[in-house]
Amino acid sequence: MERPRHQGMAKNTYMRWRLPLVCLLWEVAMIVLFGVFVRFSPEADAHWEEEKQEMNLTSDIENDFYFRYPSFQDVHVMIFVGFGFLMTFLKRYGFGAVGFNFLLAAFGIQWALLMQGWFHSFKSGKILIGVENLINADFCVGSVCIAFGAILGKTSPIQLLIMTLFQVTLFAVNEYILLNLLHVKDAGGSMTIHTFGAYFGLTVTRILYRPNLEQSKDKQGSVYHSDLFAMIGTLYLWMYWPSFNSAISDHGDAQHRAAINTYCSLAACVLTTMAFSSMLQKKGKLDMVHIQNATLAGGVAVGTSAEMMLTPYGSLIVGFICGIVSTVGYVYLTPFLESRLHIQDTCGIHNLHAMPGLIGGIVGAITAAAATEDVYGKEGFIKAFDFTGTYQTRTPSVQGGFQAAGIVVSLLMAFAGGALVGAILKLPVWGDAAAENCFEDDIYWEV
Amino acid sequence: MERPRHQGMAKNTYMRWRLPLVCLLWEVAMIVLFGVFVRFSPEADAHWEEEKQEMNLTSDIENDFYFRYPSFQDVHVMIFVGFGFLMTFLKRYGFGAVGFNFLLAAFGIQWALLMQGWFHSFKSGKILIGVENLINADFCVGSVCIAFGAILGKTSPIQLLIMTLFQVTLFAVNEYILLNLLHVKDAGGSMTIHTFGAYFGLTVTRILYRPNLEQSKDKQGSVYHSDLFAMIGTLYLWMYWPSFNSAISDHGDAQHRAAINTYCSLAACVLTTMAFSSMLQKKGKLDMVHIQNATLAGGVAVGTSAEMMLTPYGSLIVGFICGIVSTVGYVYLTPFLESRLHIQDTCGIHNLHAMPGLIGGIVGAITAAAATEDVYGKEGFIKAFDFTGTYQTRTPSVQGGFQAAGIVVSLLMAFAGGALVGAILKLPVWGDAAAENCFEDDIYWEV
Amino acid sequence: MERPRHQGMAKNTYMRWRLPLVCLLWEVAMIVLFGVFVRFSPEADAHWEEEKQEMNLTSDIENDFYFRYPSFQDVHVMIFVGFGFLMTFLKRYGFGAVGFNFLLAAFGIQWALLMQGWFHSFKSGKILIGVENLINADFCVGSVCIAFGAILGKTSPIQLLIMTLFQVTLFAVNEYILLNLLHVKDAGGSMTIHTFGAYFGLTVTRILYRPNLEQSKDKQGSVYHSDLFAMIGTLYLWMYWPSFNSAISDHGDAQHRAAINTYCSLAACVLTTMAFSSMLQKKGKLDMVHIQNATLAGGVAVGTSAEMMLTPYGSLIVGFICGIVSTVGYVYLTPFLESRLHIQDTCGIHNLHAMPGLIGGIVGAITAAAATEDVYGKEGFIKAFDFTGTYQTRTPSVQGGFQAAGIVVSLLMAFAGGALVGAILKLPVWGDAAAENCFEDDIYWEV
Repeated sequence: MERPRHQGMAKNTYMRWRLPLVCLLWEVAMIVLFGVFVRFSPEADAHWEEEKQEMNLTSDIENDFYFRYPSFQDVHVMIFVGFGFLMTFLKRYGFGAVGFNFLLAAFGIQWALLMQGWFHSFKSGKILIGVENLINADFCVGSVCIAFGAILGKTSPIQLLIMTLFQVTLFAVNEYILLNLLHVKDAGGSMTIHTFGAYFGLTVTRILYRPNLEQSKDKQGSVYHSDLFAMIGTLYLWMYWPSFNSAISDHGDAQHRAAINTYCSLAACVLTTMAFSSMLQKKGKLDMVHIQNATLAGGVAVGTSAEMMLTPYGSLIVGFICGIVSTVGYVYLTPFLESRLHIQDTCGIHNLHAMPGLIGGIVGAITAAAATEDVYGKEGFIKAFDFTGTYQTRTPSVQGGFQAAGIVVSLLMAFAGGALVGAILKLPVWGDAAAENCFEDDIYWEV
Repeated sequence: MERPRHQGMAKNTYMRWRLPLVCLLWEVAMIVLFGVFVRFSPEADAHWEEEKQEMNLTSDIENDFYFRYPSFQDVHVMIFVGFGFLMTFLKRYGFGAVGFNFLLAAFGIQWALLMQGWFHSFKSGKILIGVENLINADFCVGSVCIAFGAILGKTSPIQLLIMTLFQVTLFAVNEYILLNLLHVKDAGGSMTIHTFGAYFGLTVTRILYRPNLEQSKDKQGSVYHSDLFAMIGTLYLWMYWPSFNSAISDHGDAQHRAAINTYCSLAACVLTTMAFSSMLQKKGKLDMVHIQNATLAGGVAVGTSAEMMLTPYGSLIVGFICGIVSTVGYVYLTPFLESRLHIQDTCGIHNLHAMPGLIGGIVGAITAAAATEDVYGKEGFIKAFDFTGTYQTRTPSVQGGFQAAGIVVSLLMAFAGGALVGAILKLPVWGDAAAENCFEDDIYWEV
Repeated sequence: MERPRHQGMAKNTYMRWRLPLVCLLWEVAMIVLFGVFVRFSPEADAHWEEEKQEMNLTSDIENDFYFRYPSFQDVHVMIFVGFGFLMTFLKRYGFGAVGFNFLLAAFGIQWALLMQGWFHSFKSGKILIGVENLINADFCVGSVCIAFGAILGKTSPIQLLIMTLFQVTLFAVNEYILLNLLHVKDAGGSMTIHTFGAYFGLTVTRILYRPNLEQSKDKQGSVYHSDLFAMIGTLYLWMYWPSFNSAISDHGDAQHRAAINTYCSLAACVLTTMAFSSMLQKKGKLDMVHIQNATLAGGVAVGTSAEMMLTPYGSLIVGFICGIVSTVGYVYLTPFLESRLHIQDTCGIHNLHAMPGLIGGIVGAITAAAATEDVYGKEGFIKAFDFTGTYQTRTPSVQGGFQAAGIVVSLLMAFAGGALVGAILKLPVWGDAAAENCFEDDIYWEV
């Protein structure tokens, strides 16, 4: 079939056999792999009664389920409603935003359970999963939702599924390098989720550059109601971000502290976002694009450091800066990236995830390097950075260096992985729409 | 007053005295009955300090509130936002969908606290309620919300309140037969909530058959924004379903396991729903009706077995099958039921709740029958199936048989109860709208 | 610049320098004050390991985080999505409703952490914050969201920020008088949040009276979709109110009981709201304004007493009454207040918060006065009312008297504070819109 690129002519977006085939084949693969590998962790297994005795637990409340399940549900809402609805701002792409996000996330969490399971929960030939695995799978898929934001409206569901398969794989590898090889802390994923996810997505969209995208410019805006739908996404991301950054931290003070730091950072971020949104517009009016996105940058930017002794005022400072950086990015950087670097970033993930993610990595490195036994307490210091076993002698400044290395590794993985996946997605067989049909639900949905 | 049925002429839908009378009388009855019967359970009573000592608990965290309250809130959201917004897909029935669901659920939970209380929490002449009773009341009302889906847009609020009164009553009886007499496990309610609720509603809508319903066919569709509102309902049901299926399971591993199994089943279900939605449409486009509904079938179908050792891959298989069954049902079975069997099922609850509920009952029976001490551990086996006291000698295969009997009982109760209630609702005094005014908020709401 | 009041001519609503200046200055002030004063509470500090030993805790689950974090998140949703979306009912003020609520709440929680911290969490020169402080900050800001409801659509964002600064300050003072000086119980804030917040807002809107407001009458209504958006707010407030009223109650039975009482009160309230909504309308149709608001009055009215032994049927009675009072208020009182007393109450907070708040204070006083050792148990009685130390000899009837005094103090603070703030906001420098531009997003937002 002829596919006249760059001419805006009709392309073959017929999904009837391709999409079902991919979905069914992959789901069968999941079933087989789960059948071979996945079992319940001891805390979710019916042998728990015996396990409790072995672990010397006196009450069912000590089951990790009760420490993490409420946070898990909040994270779950962020992935499916938060990201899904945040992207409904486009006037004619609400079904695609919510629906494709639903599809790729539902597939991605299964593959993430496997990939992350092999790296982190593999015991005697089986992956043993519990509530923490579910959170981590949601986290991993979060990075795909971020990348989706860059290519929103320009790709077919098949492309999204392929991207998900590869990105989840690379996410797990990158996460393994950071957490296990470099022994880096990143509980809220400034590096593993946001930096990696955003630069991955930006690389993909760069490679999929569409020179004639202005043909669908009229559909790339929002309407009044679609902006309100998007605010549902924004608010759920904003409100539950304290759960996101604390969900997999150590029990007790670390979870508690991570939630407080994130709460503070996000509050400050709202004020500087509003300030700069008004300041950078000639008429001084507020722009919903900024309110929907830049207000969240404060959550991204304390992803690494929230569980550390960042302190509430430290969090305010981070949020303060990120609201500015992100809003300025929307006003000046996004148009520049599009016109000069040919990076077409539908949702502006460079401003919401990429830059704040980098800041988050750096803040984490500094906070780690500045840690002292005085601030953390003797036991708290060891516990906070896991300075046990092989890492018993690591000093805070060395830890800070490794944290910084984690940023670099995440960036490299994102660029390399994004280039690879972008090249694959560029193959003219995946059924993406012509430039004039972008940002239009009618292509893939019964409307 | 003349009520010319089958002619589409104006009917008396005037609610001014009838609706207030019913609401006020029933609420007064609730107050009297609560005054006579309902008190706090020991864990919610101010005597708890003494209770704690008697129960040998060392910490307030052992209060059942902390084991179940987060799940309760998730279930609460499912009932009021989940079901309420799922039904807003109709272009002109959003107020009725959300508002009547609100009304019937608010009434139903009160009556359910009483009915279920008499059967399960009755001590020395009083019903003692705690957080588990609130969850069970929400569950019970969930079955009414399901039935509401079949008759959505075609009934008056008074009919809905009457249906709620009867259905809650019958639900409690059926639940008592299953859980207490047959000693059946059904924590997520595949049988008690979904099978019973759906076949009850289908029977009611069959009896209320409207031959001229095509007169309001133009209002029976959705518009772009109403489909997005409905997706709010879908996603909250989907995300919180792990809480639904684990909310009243035993503390510890059972709750933990139920959440994991449900998470897996729902993820698989999304992929097969998407696959078949595209495959069964000539142009290969996705249909929002399927995405809104069939993606949830996987949660229904592990309702009975989620707390058992279904295993993650078992859950994937169940979700895989149910996404297919449910989507195929929407495409082929719903039109058939309407044209041949005169079952007008507005929301397609046959596909989302009835068939998956039956599958859920069967999967539960099989999973129970296949249980072994090896898989569950000696203590875990007894705990999982409550094989104590009278049931000390029950074997897994016998349990499987009783589980199967539970399905049959639920079906019979649904058909008999639905026929009775349908006949009552058919009386020409409840103020339902004429055929050409169905699916129209203007009848009962100031618009 | 000329500002011709009362003539409907264009006013200077240009925000470009004023709004950014206020936001940035205040956020810088927050950072400085947080830097000087705010640190982590022992349960969120990395020294927790040592703290645990001192507090004799054997498990991380004893950290207050696990007792309160799920409730905190529910309250957080109520403040940002609940109040935010409840106010989107206006056809052209959705951005302002959600966006300004977001802005003032994000600022307010920071200032509340400081103000409430100085009064309640100040130790050796530092404010030590934990999850309970976050909840209290959200509560405090809730009272500002309530007041916002009265002036919705008629004020500039700068006015809202100024009001927030003052109202949070006065809230903290009033709360200190009630809780510490009068030793009053008010866990769900019937007095401190609702009575104070509502009468404060009503006083402000009285002083800001706009005689020509009928010029924007066409924009003061709702459209179909905006009413559905508002229902999102309503339902989240309704569903999570049990968390609101139980969030800061004592661990154990008090939290448990508060949730149950609130659940019951709200359920009853829905039925009487529906009854009176239909009854008071000539055609007997239901009015979305009532459903969106009056259904919530039952939550407000058990705010003080929910953690006491109000009993489920007592809660039903309170909900029953408040649904009626609130609905009747919308039909008869709001027009009267506007025409006769010149109180322009956009959202009708007099019906949703003011009257139910007063009822809540009174119900709390009665419930406290009626307390007996028999009903609460010896230890429970002391624990429920904190009858220790200085208050060891206080009797229930004396407590009832102090509770009643709390209502009066809250009212006086609200009137005096509202008058002061209203006078400040009346200064012609804050950039509010002309009468004919009220209820219109276009003034402050890029639309």
